[in-house]
Amino acid sequence: MANPKARVFVSNPTWPNHISILKYLGIETITYRYFDDETRAVDFDGMMADLQAVQPGDVVLLHGCCHNPTGANLNLVEWQAVIDLLNTHQALPMIDIAYQGFGDGLEEDAAATRLVASHVPECLIAASCSKNFGIYRERTGLLMAVSQDTGARGLNQDTLAFLNRQNYSFPPDHGARLVTMILNDPELRADWAAELEDVRLSMLDLRKSLADELQQVSGSDRFAFLAQHRGMFSRLGTTPDLVERLRAEHGIYMIGDSRMNIAGLNQQTIPILAKAIVDVGV
Amino acid sequence: MANPKARVFVSNPTWPNHISILKYLGIETITYRYFDDETRAVDFDGMMADLQAVQPGDVVLLHGCCHNPTGANLNLVEWQAVIDLLNTHQALPMIDIAYQGFGDGLEEDAAATRLVASHVPECLIAASCSKNFGIYRERTGLLMAVSQDTGARGLNQDTLAFLNRQNYSFPPDHGARLVTMILNDPELRADWAAELEDVRLSMLDLRKSLADELQQVSGSDRFAFLAQHRGMFSRLGTTPDLVERLRAEHGIYMIGDSRMNIAGLNQQTIPILAKAIVDVGV
Repeated sequence: MANPKARVFVSNPTWPNHISILKYLGIETITYRYFDDETRAVDFDGMMADLQAVQPGDVVLLHGCCHNPTGANLNLVEWQAVIDLLNTHQALPMIDIAYQGFGDGLEEDAAATRLVASHVPECLIAASCSKNFGIYRERTGLLMAVSQDTGARGLNQDTLAFLNRQNYSFPPDHGARLVTMILNDPELRADWAAELEDVRLSMLDLRKSLADELQQVSGSDRFAFLAQHRGMFSRLGTTPDLVERLRAEHGIYMIGDSRMNIAGLNQQTIPILAKAIVDVGV
Repeated sequence: MANPKARVFVSNPTWPNHISILKYLGIETITYRYFDDETRAVDFDGMMADLQAVQPGDVVLLHGCCHNPTGANLNLVEWQAVIDLLNTHQALPMIDIAYQGFGDGLEEDAAATRLVASHVPECLIAASCSKNFGIYRERTGLLMAVSQDTGARGLNQDTLAFLNRQNYSFPPDHGARLVTMILNDPELRADWAAELEDVRLSMLDLRKSLADELQQVSGSDRFAFLAQHRGMFSRLGTTPDLVERLRAEHGIYMIGDSRMNIAGLNQQTIPILAKAIVDVGV
């Protein structure tokens, strides 16, 4: 696993609490280029260039799917290139996968995580059931330490058990039991997968509607990225000034970095949002 | 609240995970005398002498009731003396109350915590529902920061919210809802209190039975302390050698420091345990 002086490389931007938690733990954080404000896609060349700085035992934090906050993701060819780089530099990938089933499908969203887990000597995977089971309030998920060295199993298990005991002693049971019950019952599992797929397709519809509406209003293709992004969030890629004008002139609120929650839209609000976005000059 | 360089004073012995957690957090721990292996009661003079070393902003960790692992507790006169000492030295009490309702009753077990909270400028109270609601696996409880200075409320609330966010983000909901439902419904609350009282009286019966049996078998009063102790645990106050002989010669298992779980006994096993204890020469 990581070396005791490990630095953690995080995408710029990443979920803000990643940085806050690492700071609280006294772990050095280094950002790597990720989102390109011009193309609204991943700045893959910049990312690879910045990851050249990783040293043996450093940790590279990656979003397994549905990057939060940008919505922009790597394709599998790019993932393989990242894996090769990490292996060359003997760095440890840690994957945060909080939105499995919200992007391209349950299996599709797990593909990158599986690719990493099967192509590196060791990795850490943090998976959450908060969103894809809708049980945010029951704190259900897991941290997996995967090692190709079966001899490391005992040590990793003991380390995780120790850290648990210093922290919350035991995880809460209720949410984990619900998830276990659903996943172990073919009928419940099929129901759940179908409902999750409805949620996913509905978010994709909203993305497509917003991109189409913006194309119509703006007469340009510059918002097509919204239909390419995956997950609940997209970063519009605009300035805090224009975010502020959306608020002041149109009563439309988003995070200062222009992150939008796509799932919060509907067919009635999309035309209003599209008009406002173009109106303020994004 | 505590000063940034606070040391935490803990009883000797205390719940082992107190020490483990403090060590993990890099906080200096200092033990104060507590259990007297001869009398099997609190060494109150030793405790007060050791607490003279507290400095302003140090934290003194106290068990609100049913001291774990010893079963030996302060009376309210002694609690008041501790409070006076802490106030004189401007130290911060932190009360861990994990067994309310397991000692002398729900109200009685809260008396010391209430005495502290109402007689010091500030205190911390960690309360658990794991035992008295039987929901160990749902991780239900709370940390209270009590301050007589109403101006400190915002700061304390923000600090606790920040620490939450760096740790588990939100507490799990299920257990807290069950407890809230029970406490807010007069009928459910009365049922719960009555069941808890049954549990408590049954443990007291076990204590009395074991003390009586040991008096008969040993022909002495030296085990009367077992009926004076409160909560699930008692420390027998014997050597690791005799604990080992109980295991090897009688198949009776207890922690090496001679902590016994009283709640694990019944009327069939008490005579067997009593005979074994006297047999090995405790």
